[in-house]
Amino acid sequence: MTEPGSQTLASNLTHTGFDRAHLDTTLDAVIRWHDEGFGGIARTPCLHSEPLSQLTGTQIHVKLENLQQTGSFKERGAYARMRALGEDVKARGVVAASAGNHAQGVALHGRRLGAQTRIFMPLGTPTIKVNQTRGLGADVVLEGEDFDAAKQAALAFADQSGAVFVHPFDDPHVLCGQGMIAREMLSIVPDLDTLVIPVGGGGLASGMGLMARRINPDIRLIGVQADLFPSFHNLYHQRKAPVGGVTLAEGIAVREPGTLTRSLLVDLLDEMLVVDEAMIERALNLFLTQMRVLAEGAGAVGLAAVLAHPDLFRGGKTGLVLCGGNIDTRLLSSLLLRDLARSNRLARLRIQLIDVPGQLSGVSRVISEAGGNVTDVAYHKTFSNLPAKVTNIDISLEAQDADHMAAIITALRTAGFTVERADY
Amino acid sequence: MTEPGSQTLASNLTHTGFDRAHLDTTLDAVIRWHDEGFGGIARTPCLHSEPLSQLTGTQIHVKLENLQQTGSFKERGAYARMRALGEDVKARGVVAASAGNHAQGVALHGRRLGAQTRIFMPLGTPTIKVNQTRGLGADVVLEGEDFDAAKQAALAFADQSGAVFVHPFDDPHVLCGQGMIAREMLSIVPDLDTLVIPVGGGGLASGMGLMARRINPDIRLIGVQADLFPSFHNLYHQRKAPVGGVTLAEGIAVREPGTLTRSLLVDLLDEMLVVDEAMIERALNLFLTQMRVLAEGAGAVGLAAVLAHPDLFRGGKTGLVLCGGNIDTRLLSSLLLRDLARSNRLARLRIQLIDVPGQLSGVSRVISEAGGNVTDVAYHKTFSNLPAKVTNIDISLEAQDADHMAAIITALRTAGFTVERADY
Repeated sequence: MTEPGSQTLASNLTHTGFDRAHLDTTLDAVIRWHDEGFGGIARTPCLHSEPLSQLTGTQIHVKLENLQQTGSFKERGAYARMRALGEDVKARGVVAASAGNHAQGVALHGRRLGAQTRIFMPLGTPTIKVNQTRGLGADVVLEGEDFDAAKQAALAFADQSGAVFVHPFDDPHVLCGQGMIAREMLSIVPDLDTLVIPVGGGGLASGMGLMARRINPDIRLIGVQADLFPSFHNLYHQRKAPVGGVTLAEGIAVREPGTLTRSLLVDLLDEMLVVDEAMIERALNLFLTQMRVLAEGAGAVGLAAVLAHPDLFRGGKTGLVLCGGNIDTRLLSSLLLRDLARSNRLARLRIQLIDVPGQLSGVSRVISEAGGNVTDVAYHKTFSNLPAKVTNIDISLEAQDADHMAAIITALRTAGFTVERADY
Repeated sequence: MTEPGSQTLASNLTHTGFDRAHLDTTLDAVIRWHDEGFGGIARTPCLHSEPLSQLTGTQIHVKLENLQQTGSFKERGAYARMRALGEDVKARGVVAASAGNHAQGVALHGRRLGAQTRIFMPLGTPTIKVNQTRGLGADVVLEGEDFDAAKQAALAFADQSGAVFVHPFDDPHVLCGQGMIAREMLSIVPDLDTLVIPVGGGGLASGMGLMARRINPDIRLIGVQADLFPSFHNLYHQRKAPVGGVTLAEGIAVREPGTLTRSLLVDLLDEMLVVDEAMIERALNLFLTQMRVLAEGAGAVGLAAVLAHPDLFRGGKTGLVLCGGNIDTRLLSSLLLRDLARSNRLARLRIQLIDVPGQLSGVSRVISEAGGNVTDVAYHKTFSNLPAKVTNIDISLEAQDADHMAAIITALRTAGFTVERADY
């Protein structure tokens, strides 16, 4: 059999499980390719973070998969899947459906392995993502109103053309490819006692779980999803929480885990957690400010889980996977400002002024003398329910920290101004 | 001699040079400590970046010193300086003047080595920096109106107390400590033909230069400063360009290079370049979006130099030092938005409307149908020099890329609106 993989997957599965021997053989092959250089995929660092360790109470080691060329771990599975193809099969080309990290992984390693790659993306996919994937040598086809429609188009193309469909997660080679992350982590930090792994479709978690347990049968494996997309969390805990919404963790916003991956994960995981959006946002900010690395939302859920459940981790040696760093810069910019606002280094104050000359000058002087830095001023007059001679002014300002902000507000009140917070 | 270093430096210098044998002995000692683990200082990765290589035409390898615990390379020199102290001297404590990366390096490794550390910072230093340094175990003293005054206070304290002053750059141990970056880079990528090194006081560049030339006498060494602070560039090229201004590259905004470092650098450097603020900003953005790592301004000047002078580097194998990643988040947020504006993914359009109902609705519909995303709306009426019945409206909006922005503007004009760019 020269082409084990998604086409032959069904025959390896029963209702209740999967062919474990086939998976073990696949993992053996992928380990061999990993030893041979793995197509130039970076052996990314796994770094200890002292600040994050102090904050969480467990020794935090972070695998920096955001440092892959395409900014995520997805290259690994895509490479392994295509590496497994015989030359005759590869000549028929490969096809995938993705507007994100998987698309780039398939495009880059398809080209390197000499396979023609075609990627289906939904209509309306941002041009920047189309161009990035084309820049890596893929034919990009925009088809279908949403991701599911694009996927159907990709499967139809595979049927017609004989091209191999590269599934983003539900495939033995793909998940074993992702498993090499665990192999590298445990080679760099052999005594990790816990791995915390993001779960979307489940390829990363099941591959890392298989690999990690082969090296250390006692290692603890904890999966994490965003609480807006608890698809596998529902299965694991036999719940029926709703699935859907706008999450920062787009990369793991998957409605249905894979067939193979769900069978594996139910066995492998010791615990399955969900984290809320606020914690994901906090974790993303901490990676940036405490480790100076950029995480996308899905890359931050592991740290978010440790922050949300410190008792589960205290005292141990915890491995996190910062699985990707592809985040829109405008979103990132807004996350940074929200973090400053939450920590009271930015605030908007609503101040009542009598509508006579000199009032703005008075406010500005007090703020300036207290060391605050004004960043925006807006007057509100027409729609105020204050007396006609009184004006509301909203002043946005920057302070060094929360204590400093409080001191500025006190200084304004001491000078006789009526001040309230205007966060809305 | 148990305490070579800044106190004994003067005796090792003549008007025309320095004691090279003493430096070589110091470098030998530091290399030994480096082999012994270097006080737990991270051997940070040196990563190849394919996107940056394609952009610049040279193979780019980046040493990620932003991944140090305190976010910069400064730990290395501070450690080496304090490691050199005899126990009796160390018992008198160490002192430094810095509100930045050097402060944290001294604090962290002073504590680890068992020396009491006192750091002088100027009055008005942001509380966050004071607290970070205190959190690493240092006594922080706020004294003096500016950095020079804080430094004088630190030197006076050293005189009175016998504590050892740890100079940020002009010291054999400090610069040899920084030199270990070159040792690690050339051990990871032995065939680098060029190192591009930020120059402020000159400790990093002279230390890396000494070390690199010992390993490979033919390696090319290029120094870089911000063009607002060309203090060493002036010396090197015998110019008198003005020094001063507001630069993104605060970490290398040094008015006077050291005495020792300038002697070394004149010998060591094959070329000395300056880069402007726009290029530093671009480089910082590229590190974040193409490598997913956070650089401070000084950490981005090497890439900025390669971008500004591609002919100097084309075809080679170039090592850059991302020497630090400590940047204010509000500044970073604004840099991200400026980058989007420059690439036309964000724009503000000024549109003339007749002041009758339905006009805003019309504009919004055209933008929405063209796929644009409105982020801000402001009306300008009172101060317009247009006829009374005509209103200017400024609409900020987001597009996928420059072509898309142009298409939105065309759609608005086709619909009969008068549109101009309102970037000011």
